[in-house]
Order: sequence, then structure tokens, then C-alpha cells
Amino acid sequence: MLSNKKKYIVNGNSGIKAQIQFADQKQEFNKRPTKIGRRSLSRSISQSSTDSYSSAASYTDSSDDETSPRDKQQKNSKGSSDFCVKNIKQAEFGRREIEIAEQEMPALMALRKRAQGEKPLAGAKIVGCTHITAQTAVLMETLGALGAQCRWAACNIYSTLNEVAAALAENGFPVFAWKGESEDDFWWCIDRCVNVEGWQPNMILDDGGDLTHWIYKKYPNMFKKIKGIVEESVTGVHRLYQLSKAGKLCVPAMNVNDSVTKQKFDNLYCCRESILDGLKRTTDMMFGGKQVVVCGYGEVGKGCCAALKAMGSIVYVTEIDPICALQACMDGFRLVKLNEVIRQVDIVITCTGNKNVVTREHLDRMKNSCIVCNMGHSNTEIDVASLRTPELTWERVRSQVDHVIWPDGKRIVLLAEGRLLNLSCSTVPTFVLSITATTQALALIELYNAPEGRYKQDVYLLPKKMDEYVASLHLPTFDAHLTELTDEQAKYLGLNKNGPFKPNYYRY
Amino acid sequence: MLSNKKKYIVNGNSGIKAQIQFADQKQEFNKRPTKIGRRSLSRSISQSSTDSYSSAASYTDSSDDETSPRDKQQKNSKGSSDFCVKNIKQAEFGRREIEIAEQEMPALMALRKRAQGEKPLAGAKIVGCTHITAQTAVLMETLGALGAQCRWAACNIYSTLNEVAAALAENGFPVFAWKGESEDDFWWCIDRCVNVEGWQPNMILDDGGDLTHWIYKKYPNMFKKIKGIVEESVTGVHRLYQLSKAGKLCVPAMNVNDSVTKQKFDNLYCCRESILDGLKRTTDMMFGGKQVVVCGYGEVGKGCCAALKAMGSIVYVTEIDPICALQACMDGFRLVKLNEVIRQVDIVITCTGNKNVVTREHLDRMKNSCIVCNMGHSNTEIDVASLRTPELTWERVRSQVDHVIWPDGKRIVLLAEGRLLNLSCSTVPTFVLSITATTQALALIELYNAPEGRYKQDVYLLPKKMDEYVASLHLPTFDAHLTELTDEQAKYLGLNKNGPFKPNYYRY
Amino acid sequence: MLSNKKKYIVNGNSGIKAQIQFADQKQEFNKRPTKIGRRSLSRSISQSSTDSYSSAASYTDSSDDETSPRDKQQKNSKGSSDFCVKNIKQAEFGRREIEIAEQEMPALMALRKRAQGEKPLAGAKIVGCTHITAQTAVLMETLGALGAQCRWAACNIYSTLNEVAAALAENGFPVFAWKGESEDDFWWCIDRCVNVEGWQPNMILDDGGDLTHWIYKKYPNMFKKIKGIVEESVTGVHRLYQLSKAGKLCVPAMNVNDSVTKQKFDNLYCCRESILDGLKRTTDMMFGGKQVVVCGYGEVGKGCCAALKAMGSIVYVTEIDPICALQACMDGFRLVKLNEVIRQVDIVITCTGNKNVVTREHLDRMKNSCIVCNMGHSNTEIDVASLRTPELTWERVRSQVDHVIWPDGKRIVLLAEGRLLNLSCSTVPTFVLSITATTQALALIELYNAPEGRYKQDVYLLPKKMDEYVASLHLPTFDAHLTELTDEQAKYLGLNKNGPFKPNYYRY
Amino acid sequence: MLSNKKKYIVNGNSGIKAQIQFADQKQEFNKRPTKIGRRSLSRSISQSSTDSYSSAASYTDSSDDETSPRDKQQKNSKGSSDFCVKNIKQAEFGRREIEIAEQEMPALMALRKRAQGEKPLAGAKIVGCTHITAQTAVLMETLGALGAQCRWAACNIYSTLNEVAAALAENGFPVFAWKGESEDDFWWCIDRCVNVEGWQPNMILDDGGDLTHWIYKKYPNMFKKIKGIVEESVTGVHRLYQLSKAGKLCVPAMNVNDSVTKQKFDNLYCCRESILDGLKRTTDMMFGGKQVVVCGYGEVGKGCCAALKAMGSIVYVTEIDPICALQACMDGFRLVKLNEVIRQVDIVITCTGNKNVVTREHLDRMKNSCIVCNMGHSNTEIDVASLRTPELTWERVRSQVDHVIWPDGKRIVLLAEGRLLNLSCSTVPTFVLSITATTQALALIELYNAPEGRYKQDVYLLPKKMDEYVASLHLPTFDAHLTELTDEQAKYLGLNKNGPFKPNYYRY
Repeated sequence: MLSNKKKYIVNGNSGIKAQIQFADQKQEFNKRPTKIGRRSLSRSISQSSTDSYSSAASYTDSSDDETSPRDKQQKNSKGSSDFCVKNIKQAEFGRREIEIAEQEMPALMALRKRAQGEKPLAGAKIVGCTHITAQTAVLMETLGALGAQCRWAACNIYSTLNEVAAALAENGFPVFAWKGESEDDFWWCIDRCVNVEGWQPNMILDDGGDLTHWIYKKYPNMFKKIKGIVEESVTGVHRLYQLSKAGKLCVPAMNVNDSVTKQKFDNLYCCRESILDGLKRTTDMMFGGKQVVVCGYGEVGKGCCAALKAMGSIVYVTEIDPICALQACMDGFRLVKLNEVIRQVDIVITCTGNKNVVTREHLDRMKNSCIVCNMGHSNTEIDVASLRTPELTWERVRSQVDHVIWPDGKRIVLLAEGRLLNLSCSTVPTFVLSITATTQALALIELYNAPEGRYKQDVYLLPKKMDEYVASLHLPTFDAHLTELTDEQAKYLGLNKNGPFKPNYYRY
Repeated sequence: MLSNKKKYIVNGNSGIKAQIQFADQKQEFNKRPTKIGRRSLSRSISQSSTDSYSSAASYTDSSDDETSPRDKQQKNSKGSSDFCVKNIKQAEFGRREIEIAEQEMPALMALRKRAQGEKPLAGAKIVGCTHITAQTAVLMETLGALGAQCRWAACNIYSTLNEVAAALAENGFPVFAWKGESEDDFWWCIDRCVNVEGWQPNMILDDGGDLTHWIYKKYPNMFKKIKGIVEESVTGVHRLYQLSKAGKLCVPAMNVNDSVTKQKFDNLYCCRESILDGLKRTTDMMFGGKQVVVCGYGEVGKGCCAALKAMGSIVYVTEIDPICALQACMDGFRLVKLNEVIRQVDIVITCTGNKNVVTREHLDRMKNSCIVCNMGHSNTEIDVASLRTPELTWERVRSQVDHVIWPDGKRIVLLAEGRLLNLSCSTVPTFVLSITATTQALALIELYNAPEGRYKQDVYLLPKKMDEYVASLHLPTFDAHLTELTDEQAKYLGLNKNGPFKPNYYRY
Repeated sequence: MLSNKKKYIVNGNSGIKAQIQFADQKQEFNKRPTKIGRRSLSRSISQSSTDSYSSAASYTDSSDDETSPRDKQQKNSKGSSDFCVKNIKQAEFGRREIEIAEQEMPALMALRKRAQGEKPLAGAKIVGCTHITAQTAVLMETLGALGAQCRWAACNIYSTLNEVAAALAENGFPVFAWKGESEDDFWWCIDRCVNVEGWQPNMILDDGGDLTHWIYKKYPNMFKKIKGIVEESVTGVHRLYQLSKAGKLCVPAMNVNDSVTKQKFDNLYCCRESILDGLKRTTDMMFGGKQVVVCGYGEVGKGCCAALKAMGSIVYVTEIDPICALQACMDGFRLVKLNEVIRQVDIVITCTGNKNVVTREHLDRMKNSCIVCNMGHSNTEIDVASLRTPELTWERVRSQVDHVIWPDGKRIVLLAEGRLLNLSCSTVPTFVLSITATTQALALIELYNAPEGRYKQDVYLLPKKMDEYVASLHLPTFDAHLTELTDEQAKYLGLNKNGPFKPNYYRY
Repeated sequence: MLSNKKKYIVNGNSGIKAQIQFADQKQEFNKRPTKIGRRSLSRSISQSSTDSYSSAASYTDSSDDETSPRDKQQKNSKGSSDFCVKNIKQAEFGRREIEIAEQEMPALMALRKRAQGEKPLAGAKIVGCTHITAQTAVLMETLGALGAQCRWAACNIYSTLNEVAAALAENGFPVFAWKGESEDDFWWCIDRCVNVEGWQPNMILDDGGDLTHWIYKKYPNMFKKIKGIVEESVTGVHRLYQLSKAGKLCVPAMNVNDSVTKQKFDNLYCCRESILDGLKRTTDMMFGGKQVVVCGYGEVGKGCCAALKAMGSIVYVTEIDPICALQACMDGFRLVKLNEVIRQVDIVITCTGNKNVVTREHLDRMKNSCIVCNMGHSNTEIDVASLRTPELTWERVRSQVDHVIWPDGKRIVLLAEGRLLNLSCSTVPTFVLSITATTQALALIELYNAPEGRYKQDVYLLPKKMDEYVASLHLPTFDAHLTELTDEQAKYLGLNKNGPFKPNYYRY
């Protein structure tokens, strides 16, 4: 089924003092009506911008005051007040986080080193809207080292690490973001990045499309100077393709979400590990011998199935696409319709990108103690709303874990209320974030430096050579040694010795 | 290398409100001198009795008073005060925990059902000393349902779930245990179980050997009436074999630790999952592409290696036993000496049961960010003491995670201070505990009902037929359907249709 | 590295009387100079047309006479003599082979059934040049059932099953092919298919490009009536892309080689099994514990690595492409340069599509008994020519197995003289051939029925919907049950309920 | 279920000119009535002595004359005629085979080297009855180098490699064996080994128990001088245990069949590979997506399941033993009764050691093209006799492959007529044979040199230290580096630094 794409904010390293917290902070938000269509451009705020996040560690929050950052007067040590963060005094804590993250993002550090002579982003004025974490900070400071000026807002109202935002502000970056923004705060922050006297962005780095949307709506003239948009998320990319289709895209855009390296790490490799992690952290269950049905055999489904099979689970797969279905067969999974196994399975995992894959009817037929969770897209795959009926009792047994109890005593274990398990109940390794950040940096460099005419007003995939470059920057982590083509071999294959090495349609 | 055996106390189910807590409570204890030899009977308290535990959930503790339970006057609703727990009023909370555990321990519930007519433990007076958890409570109430009278103390000063102890006391079980006992409390509780007017135990259920040791020391005459000892732990079993060798064992003892079913679940199957869980919860690391060395290829090592290989790690193995070494080769792992790979690996895992497997010299040579942890026995495998030198800086970055920093800035990530990772940083599934508890119950029944002369003053393994029975009671969990021998086949094989099905030396 | 593509002729079922023969028949051909560039259109005969084949079973050959088929006068039972085969009297034997193959090619049989009303190929005049085997016969008779007229030649001088050719001739198909054609015969046969009075082809089905080349060279005017070319092989596709680049392609061509389903089965799934099969059949070696280096981590390399890892080998990988290299890391393989491990490995396997990946220098450094083989493309990957020097002794120890002996007694075990191991020393399952044949049939239908203008004078990939259709026709073999989108879901996803389900760049 | 044990004769290396032959030679023998009970001592000839063998290569046989060896007058080059082989002139061919085998049996060669000073078998007079192959020859010549005198017969009427027998005779070993002995020949040869003037054996090396049986029956007095019996096979061991039980065993016997190393290699590791090999060589089937039921989850079943799962098959397991059943669950296999899946599976594999596991009723219900084969013990597991009924048609489609055809056209593919697939249709790697031969040599040394009283008239397992020694001798093959205990560690563990390292009940 459709590929899965998720967003995350994590402290994916062992060098942070923060405790893992399965925060219940999402509750409140869920009470707001969210009848906004998933793929509609017209909504006022992207759904992803209000998703919940686990591990959004903040070890200094408890001592914070309650004043809104917008009402505070703050200056960094150099006297600048062109930022708005929770508390500039937390900068030192944030700096330590950033330094630790730097150690685990060698690719960006290598980019900095190579850029010491040339400054490939000299003159670039980048406005960004992403999660604000230690890893993002490493990206931003790398862009700075490459010559760019940056202004930044958060793409999610919960995901900002206040200390990191403070450290960036202290270092001179105009950052407008804090944890727990209101919707009004959200747009205000974005506007503060864009609407500045004497400064106009010429590059956009977006995650979710909200920043792009805001400029389209409020400052369409800005696009005259903008050289390109780099967009990371499924949702944002979808919006861009719609704009393009409608003939309304007025600058080149780079879809970095679908680059090979990013896709494989975000989906296959990362989910292979996070499905186990998410299930263990929430339920302490044993995988051996369990019967599991995985809905969808895209990259995410492949990762989940491989991991669970390796741990001794018996895995069934459902699919709508006959090609993926045949792959599931060849990989040793029985391909079934959900109804065929729903009464017998111990775990149901959705990875489809689709909606209502697990319906109330399915939930009614599950056996006692069946665990239900979603690894796919957003929170549409399981029809959780259908469980909010009077005859069913909800019992919160642990953070992110609800028991839904039928009149006859049957309990279903629902994880993260049907939202993304990997986002809500596990963490994303820094290595995966490093891949993403490096891809974004290279896409910005490419769009900014591309000769006139190379890119038109369309949506592009990252050039294969760049994709290969991202990969090569991460090989040293594994002490991996690449072989070089000899001249004779390159000629024989009709390839440049430095790549790209594959035709565009190659599937990896 | 030597088989691994561990103890644990967990809330291995998703039906508990408690938060996962990586408690740092162990610190204090570790300051006490613990120069007690691992296998010495002469020590005053078994090492395992003061080990630390993760997930020792107690959701009502915060509101508790500080009075010692020994100084309190408490009665249960039936007027009995023959118990000593933290707070009898917590009984209701504990009862709910027990009820949830019952759902996940079908084997014991099946035993209760079968025992409704006959009472195989009628007349049995069992004194027990184990971790006191919801799972133990299910065991104790099962023993009661089978006809036994029980008195119980805790085998570890930290592991008691106070609510569960209260629920047992409320239900009429004389329980003497609370979380956070002093060493004096520890022995006092045991004594209160044994030293009762008008009641003398005829069966012992021990975990670690402290109870047995106490009776040997204080009330040796009691053994005249005792029909047998059932011992679960490696340490306790070792003590029993020593007694036997010295000709001092005066009743039959059943070593349930080495039953096939228990071994495979405690070691191979459980560790296959908990190595991943423990590493993820502490470090959020990515397994793919990492180089790992696993010291020891016994059941625990086999489980660790299989899991990490399946997750895409590159695994090296060290061994002292050529047979296990050859197995490692055939399973696809390079067999090396630790020195050969110590500079290149990202993770070092010990599973040997040995001491000083990882020395300061090894630690000095590891690369920056190398993770070091122990899945083996106790805390002897990594020479942690050698790291307590002035030139090294310790930095606690997370609960159970220390960075040890060399003068040149190199950091080693030490987990759980070298204690058991699976005990300290992950949980044990209820299913595994169910296997153990069922094995204990059947061993008690066997020893209690054995005709005179079947067992002498020696240490016995659980009869194979009982071992098979434990397994068969757990098959329904997996909807697994056993095939029965026909009469003709049984005759052909020379087997009884009901087992045992294998010779004693069969290796599974 | 480059994807692997191979051709094969097999009796991939258990219903054939033929013995497996590791024929040494290739020897002779190899003596002819073959300095023809691999990708040159100018050569007189494609290299693949003279490759060797294992299992080219022919149980009646021994009794055959030596007369050239071109000199024989033969008629089928209906009086037609428009064919040229070894011996029309073998038709009955061939028919039985075809019937057995029909049982294992349910997809083509399903196509026949669906075509009973409509005849999607009515009016089609197809000239074909492929291996002539039972599986091809099922394809040809399916094309016939769909309304097409066919004329057929062999694309390889060794691969024709004479009995099958006879059965097709008896059934009225003008077939011109026999096992052991000379080069002159080869072109004569092709010419007889094309150069017919009163019949002109309007569709081409080619495998290797020789037929297409012949028409280009001899009958360029024919292209006026030709609606399209369907080409299966890597080589043939390469030729077509070259023609297209040079602006000389005058009809639409369908590259069925790169369809998803075909690629995955030919490369990943098939090689995962045939690497084990080929090594076992030739050397009877044990895989457990062996150190193996696999050069190239494309689909073929991935399949080889996965299989050997699963069997307990320790696998190293070499790569030139950083993306594939990173995949190898994440899948748990050490990425090395060949020189780093060449002294220690037990097996060297090439899967690159490149040339001189294993050089004489590498061979000199291998340890005694090292096995060297090629799963990649053609016979270029191992520099076998460099071993034909006076100081080395060649010893043929078994069919397809040579010992090359160094002066110091060291022996290298060279398989299939560096030609494709999977082609020479194992068989291809009928299921894989069924996928290919179905893909070819659907491509012919598509091109033949496409409305004017859908396809221009260019090379096209099989439309995704057709690719999905091929997959769906093979699902019943596995009793696999596909899920259908509801209307609501299809709308949500923006998809047609019948597919295609993925964007073109999706990587599976 | 019961452990599997098999015998084999192979040319398990790539250095032999012989072709793989799927000989049909067994047919004839199968016509003889074989109603002899499997485990009866009273039968005149052991069943295993007439089992069939694949790959019993003999490249010079075709030119042989038909005279019985018993009627020939032959002398070796030193003038001795104390032997009886097919043709002494084939000695040179045999010697080459032996030399190649020596290269792959480093453990025996190491034993020879170490024995150059001491001769641990000086004075030993060993009478042996085993398969006579190049590997056996390496064993015999090693025994000679260690000081022993040997006389040898074949334990199977088909398995002798005539050239090897000739080479041994030429080298002075009194060998009495040829391929294709009659039953009378068989006993005559054994008698010629035992019944010699002026020579009386003091050690027995047996494989199947026929030699032991013969001495018991004909020369019971010989046991007075015999120091012990070393027996390799399941059948022979069973006979010995029966003798022991009946109080009739008059010398110590060593059961080398159940040593850890031998068991794991013969069953788990070897079968993991040979199940794939056997199925491929006979049917060319594709494993991916196939549904398979494996009857029995002992070591053999575990090996088969692991291999097929790794190749993408969906595997079900049947078991009678609840412990093995639970292992199957935890390893990810659904545990079923055969009837539950018999209609849907593509392959049925028996590994039980039991009889009539697959009955006619099961066979009647299988689907078309279902493959049925046996990896277990002997030929009892599948009720093949039940298929010899008039309404079913047998069609031999390939050597070792029969189609059994039902009246409605359904075909079952029966492999090796229900005999052992791994014995009949695949080969055993020399490495496995090396383990066995080394174990036999060490057992002989141990029994011969044991001080009076160490062994009584009973059946013993190989001492663990010897078992470990066998393993250690094979580690260099894998370049595996064993770690040595420090003095401190050995003391801590209470172990000798040189082993044994495990208690006897350790399960590996």
C-alpha cells in the first residue's frame, strides 16, 4: 500500500539527561474538532503541526514560569532580541545537547569542513519551518557555516525543545518557537520569520507545507525572489504536487521526502526497529509465538514483518496491490483478508496510509487482549472514533495505552489512540535524522546554485548524484569501504566514476 | 560459557497503571561493601536479595507514611494480624493487579480447575521466600486452592509490590514483606514465616537459598518434618549442590532452575527480546550496521546474537568452550578473541557467568561512544571497579546510563553499572513468569506426593514428564495443537502415549 | 552495482524424464574468438545467443540421426511443411512436456480462458525469437488462442528442446529451431520466420535483439507495418535504448525486462535460491561457518547475501554505489574492498554486471580451495583469461568445475569457467518463467491494441497496471487473497480501485 | 519427536571426477521382502546395511568385469593377498581420492601429527565395519598411524567405493568389501575380518551393529580380549542398550552417536542444508511462498524449518512432545495437527523417527502436485506401501522422483520412495564426516587406554572432554579463535582451564 511517512522529534541519543516521558499532553488537543481533510490545502493548520510526540524531553520546564514568550522581553548575550523563545537563559543546556548531537551527525560536520573555502550558500536567505531539536540545530548551524542566513519557526506546536531554541537564539539565529504554542502563536511565529523589514527570503525549507502555504496566502510577491522550496513531508509534498497540477507552483520545489536514502531509513530500516521498541515500551509483551497481522506491505510493512518474523511471531499480511502482495508471498507471509484472521490474531498493525482499514466491525471480532496499533500515516487507519460509544468503557492503563472494554469483559489494547506508534511510543535514532538533515542541506545547495533553467516551476526529486552523496557521507559511521571503478570499468559500464551509478527508475 | 540465570520482578503486562521508572535506588546499596564471594554459603545475605529492579511499579507509594511496617498494628478485614506489610489498605489495588495477572497465567488457573476434586497439596505447609509480585500472588493462591497452607517472605529487599502483599494479607495469607526492607528486616521477615507457634512447615519454596540457609542455621530440627525443598535460582541451586557434596543435605531438593522449559524461556527466548529492549530503552540506538561483540555463546549469548543479527548488526562472538564455539561458527558468527575486535566494535555484551571478562585494558582500547553492558550473571563480568579511578569522569546521562569519560574526551556508555541489563533496563513478560511459577507448583506437588524412597537426600532435576506437563499447559496460549501418538506408534517407539517422550540426555 | 539479467532454458519441473546433465558442450564454442564488445550492435551474433545452458534436457537425442534439419523433408500430420525442426516425430514427447508446463503456468491459462470471447490479438502477426522450451510453447499457444499468428526462431543455438519444437510444428506453428545450430543456421532460421511470401509480421517478440537487428539490417521497410517490439533481455533492451538515442528507433518498443515483477523474480527471489543450488550441485560444500565475499549488492547480490547469511555463512560485500553500500550495512554485512578479505574468504561470488571485478592479482592471493563463481552478467566479471597461463594447471574435476592449480599446489575451484552459475549449474523454476511469459503476452496485447499516439518511437516500461495484472494472475498459486479498496478508501487515496496503485517512481 | 540419525556415503568434495548419479539400483533390493522389525536383534542383516545411497561415485566401474571378487586371485604390490576387493588395480585412483579427502579432514591429520611420538593405539587390534569411502580411509590410515592394526568390512552392500578399497588393500590394510555385495557376501566379508588365524581383535568399531552381532553369535569367546565397542549408528546403539538392559553386554561400549558435536552436525546443521539441496535436485521447485508442513521438531525438524523459513516458505509444524512443540511456537511456527493443513500444503516433510506419520488417508487428501518426502529415520514414516494399490498409477519421472497418480488425475510427487531424502538425493559434506571420524578415533583411544574400572559393561556417552576436543580440532577450519580462561577465572568458575566446561546435563 502507500508508503508511510512520519515526522518525529526525538532525543535519539544516550547523552541527554532527560527522562523518557510518555506524556499525555495530547489529550487536550484531541478534544478540538479535527474534521479537517487530510490532504486539503484550505485548512488553516496542517494536521501534522499538532500531532503529539513522545520523548519531547525538557528537563528544565518544571521550573519555568507561565508567561507567554510573546509577552517577554529577552535579549541574547550579544544584545539581539530578534527571536522569541521560552527562556534565553536555558541556552547553555541547549548548547550541550547540540554538541552531543554534532558527534552523531558526522555527515553535516563533514559538509561544514568541506565548505570552509567555498561558501556554497553565500547569499542564501533561508526561511525554515521544521521541528526544532538538537538535530535541527546542527542543520541550521551547518547552513550558517555554509554561508546562509536563516530565520526559523517550528512546524509543530508541541515539538520544540526550548533549550535548543534558546541556544540557537543565543548563537544569533532568529528563532521563533516554543513548546506548547497556541494555533495563533503558530502562525505568528511563522509570520515573524517571513515578514521582516530589510530581509527577504530566497529559499524555503519546509516540513508540512504550512510555511509555504502562509507565504502563498499572505506574501505571494515574495516568490519572485525565491529560488526554490525544499519540502520534507508527505503532506507538504502532496500539497506541492497539487499546486503544480493546478499550474500554481511559481518556483522549483525539491521533494526530498522521496529520495532513496531518506525513504529507506525513515521507513524500512527505522520501522524494522521501532515496531519492536514501540510494542515493548507500551505493553512489555513477548513476541515469540504471537500471531500478528500487518496491514500493508510497503516499506513500513516490510520492516515490521521482517522484525516480527525474526522475533518468532507468526505474521499474516493484507494488501491491495498485487505486486506488493506477491512480494509478501515470496518473503514467506500468508496473504489474507483481514476478516480471515481477525478472530485469531494477538496483534493488529496498520501500515497502509489508507483510512478505516481497521473498522469497528473488525474490533468487535478481535479476541480478548488483542493489541491494535498504527505504524502507517496519521491517525486515520484505525477507526478509533467508532470506539467512542457508550457501551464501551475506556480505561487508560498506562501512558499511550488504553484498554477498551466490551460489555462482555473483552478488552482491546489500543496504543497511542491509533496515532503513529513509532512517533508516539518509540524514538527515532539520530542516525536517521542525520540522513534527513543532510538531504535537506544538499537540496538547498542544489536549488540555490543550479544554473538558470535547470529547474522549472515543478516538483523535483533529489538528483541521484546528491542522493548517492548523502549515502556516501554516512558510510564512515560503519567503517564501510567503498570500491572505486577503474577507468576501464567505468568505460565498460558507460558510467562516470563518481556516479550517478543507476538509471532513474532503479528500485534499490 | 556458563548458562545465565537471572531473577526479576516485573509488571509484565499492559494492564497496570504504573509508570516505567528507571529508578536510581540502587546507588545507595552499592556503597555498602559487598566483598561477599558469589558462591559462598557463609555470607549473611544472598547477593541477589539486594539486586536492583526496574519497573518495580508502585503507584500508591508516594502517599505512604514513613513508619516501619514492623511498628504498625494492622488487621485485615477478617480480623487477622498474622502478617506484616506496608499498608493493608492498599489491598484493593493489589487485588486488581492479581486479577489481571490471572488472565495471563492460564496454566496456573488450569491447575486450580483440575484440583477442584482432589487437593494434591492437602496438608502441605509451605514456607516460601520469593519476589512478591502479582505473578507470585497467583502462584500462592493456586497453592492455596490445591490445599496448601502458606507463609511467605520476600527474597529481595526492593522487589516487593506493597499493594500485592496487602492483597495477599487481606486474603488471609501470612505475608511478611515490603519494599525497602533493611537487612535486619529481611531476616526478621523470614523468621516470622518459620518461627510460629503451632505451625511447622513441611515444604520449602526458595529463590536464592536464604530461607533454606536460615532454617539450616537456626532451626535445623525442622528438617525432620520437611519433605523437600524447591529452589529456583542459580545461586540457591549452587548452594544445594554444595550441601549435597558435603553430605549435609538432609531432605530431597528439586532444582527447578534447570528444567528445560524454564531454561529456554528464561535464557534463550526471553533474552532474544530483552537485549533489544534493554538497549533501546537506555540508548535509543539503531541496531542496523552496528558492530557488536557478544562474549559467551550459551543460551543467553545465542539469544542475543540471533536478535542482533536479525536487526542487521554485525556480530562477533568470544567463547572458551570449543563446542559452543563451533555452534557460533555454524550459526554464522566470527569467533574471535575480545582483543581482536575491541577497537572496532560499537557494542560489547557479556553473557558468560564469568568474572572480569571485560577488563580495564579492554575498556581503555574501546572506541568513542562504545556501549558496554552485561546480560550474564550478577555484576562480575565487566570490571566496573577498575573504572572508579581519578582520571576518569563519570557522568550520569540518564537513569541506568553512565558516560565514563577518558582524559582525551573518549566516552564509554556503561549501562546499569555493569549489572544485568535485562533485569535493570527491560521487563520480563508475564508469560515467562508463568512458566516459572507453574514449574514451581508442579515441583511442590511432586515432592509432596512422592512415595517414600523415590527421592533421597539429593538434588533432583524436575522429572521430564512434569517438565513436559508445564509445556503442555502453555500451548493453548498459542492455539497450538499437539498430535497424539497412536497405540501402534507408541509401541513402535517404545514410549508411553503420555510421555515422557525423550531420554534424559536429550538436548532439545 | 548493475542489475543482473540472465537467460535460461530449463526443465523446471519434476515431471520430466530428462536427466540433469552438466554438459561440457560449451567448450568448443569458447575456442572461437569472441572479442565482440558486449554492448555493440555491430556484432554479427549476440553473445547471449551462444551461451551455454544446463539442464537442456533431451531424452531422445541419442537416437537421432546426424542429418541437418535444413536438409530434411518433413511434414506434420496436417500436411504442412512450413517449419524446420530436428524431428517432427518427437512431437508426442514434446506435447507431454507442454502439458506438464501448462499445469504450472496458471496465469497464461487464465489469459486463454478470459480471451475466449474477445480475441485481443486477432489480426496480430507475431514473429518471435526466444528460447524454445515447454514454457515458451505455452506462451506461443496462448498467443494463438488470443488470435495471433506466430512464426518463431530460437534465440540461442543450444537451448532448443527439439521435442517441444516438434510438438509446436505438429500443432501448426511455423517453428525454425533445433539444438546445436551453427551460426549460419541461426540466421537462416530467423530469416525463414521473417522472409515469407504473403505474410508480414506486425509485432516482434525478441530476446537478445538478434531478430530486431536482422530486420533492421535486411528488411527495414517491414517496420512500416510493425506496431511494436517487445524485448526481454538486458542486452536487447540496451540495443533498443541505443537505437532510440541515435534517433533510429522507428517503432515503439516495450522493455519488459525492467518490469517490477520480472525483475524481482529473475534477480532477487530466483537468485536467493539458485546461489545455494548452484554451489551445492557443483561442490557439495557446507555453507555454515564459511566466509564469503559477494561483489555487488544489487538485486542479485541482495538475494545471494540473504540466502548465505541464512545458511550460516559470514558474508562480506563490495560495492561501488554508496546507496547500495549503505543498504548492505543496514542489512548486516561488512562493506569491504575485495583486497581486504581476499586472503581469508572461502567463496568469492560476483554479481556486478561489471568486468574484471576479480583479477588475476586477486586470484593469486586467494587461499587454497577458495571457490570462485559468477552470478552477474555474462562471463566478464572474473578475468578467467588471465588464468590461461603456462604455470597454472587446469584440472576438470567435475562437469562445470575446474581446479586451477598454482605451482605451489594451491587450488582454486572455478565454477562454470566464470560464466553464470545460475544458468550453468542450477535450474530456473517454472514459476519464474511463468512470470516472464505472462509479462511478454501482456506487453504484446498492450502494444497491439494501444490507440494511435499512446506510444511513440521510443522505449517504454510495461505500464504499471499491466505489471500489477501479471502479479495478480500469479497470486492464486499461493492461495493469496487480495484486499479490495472500498469506494471511500479509493477516493481518500485518490486511486482507481483497480489500480495502478503506486506512482511510477515507487521502488517496491 | 525422536532424534534423527542417518548414514551416508558420499563424495562430499569437489575434487572427484565422478558424476552425480541418481542411481535406481535400489529398486531390485526393495523387491525382496523386508518385514524385518526395525529394532530387532534377531534379524539376519541390519536394515541400514542395504539402504540406498546417492552419489556413490565410481568412475571406473563401467569397464569392470563381472567376476565375483571372492573368486579372484589378487595381490597387492607387496605380495599380500589378505584382502578382497573388486580390483586391486584401481588403487591409484582411490589413492587420489584419499589424498583429496585428507585435505578436508584436518582434525584427523592433526591427530596423526600429535601421535608421532606416543602411539596411543600401539597394540590395538581393531576390527571395523563401516561404509568404505575416502573419508573412512583417512580414518583407517590415521588409526594405523596411531599404532593400531586394522581389519575392515563394509556395513552396507552398496556403499563401498571400490577404488578406495583397492587403495587401502594396496597400502596393506586387510579390507573385505566391494560395491554390490550379496547378503552372503556381506557376512562372508565380516567373517574374514574376524576369523583369522593368529590375530584376534581387541577393539570393535561398528556402524549398525552387524559386526558386533556376528561376533556375539559366532565367536562369543572373543569378547574376553575385547576392550570395547565404539558404535556410531542409532540402530547399533539401540541394540547395545537392549543388550545392556538384558544384562548381556560383556564389554564397555561407547555410544558416539549421541555426542554433542556429532548430533548437532549430523542433524541440525547438516539437515538445514540438505533439505534444500534434496528438494532442489529432485524437483527444481521454488521455495518462496510455498506452504510446508514439517512433522517433528527435533534437531532435524528444527534444521528443516529454519532453512525453509529463511527461503520464504510458510512452515507449519506437527509434534507429539509438548516441549518441542513450545519451541516450535517460540521459533515462529504454527503448531498444527497434520489433518488441519494437509489439504493446503505444497510440501510434506517427515522428521519424526516414528512410523506411519503420513498415512494413505493423508495422501488421499493432499492437493495436486504436493511433494512428500522423508528426512527422518529409515523408510517407515510415510506409509508408502499403502500407495501400492491398483487404482493408483506410479510414474517414475526422474531418478528418485515418482508421480503417484490418482484416478481423478491428482498427482503426488513422492521422493526417494519415502526413504531418507538427505541420504538418497543430496550429499553429506566432508566436514560432517570429519566430525564423525574424529569422534570415532577419540572414542577408540579413550576405551583402549582407559584404566581398568573406568568403564564397566555398559553403554557410555563420549566423555565431555573428548567431545570438546573433537570440536576444538575443527575450529581452525573457520579460522576461529578460542579464548582461554585465566587462572583467576577458572578458579572463580570452579573449572579446569582445559575443560570440561559444562555439566553433563547441559543442553547446548
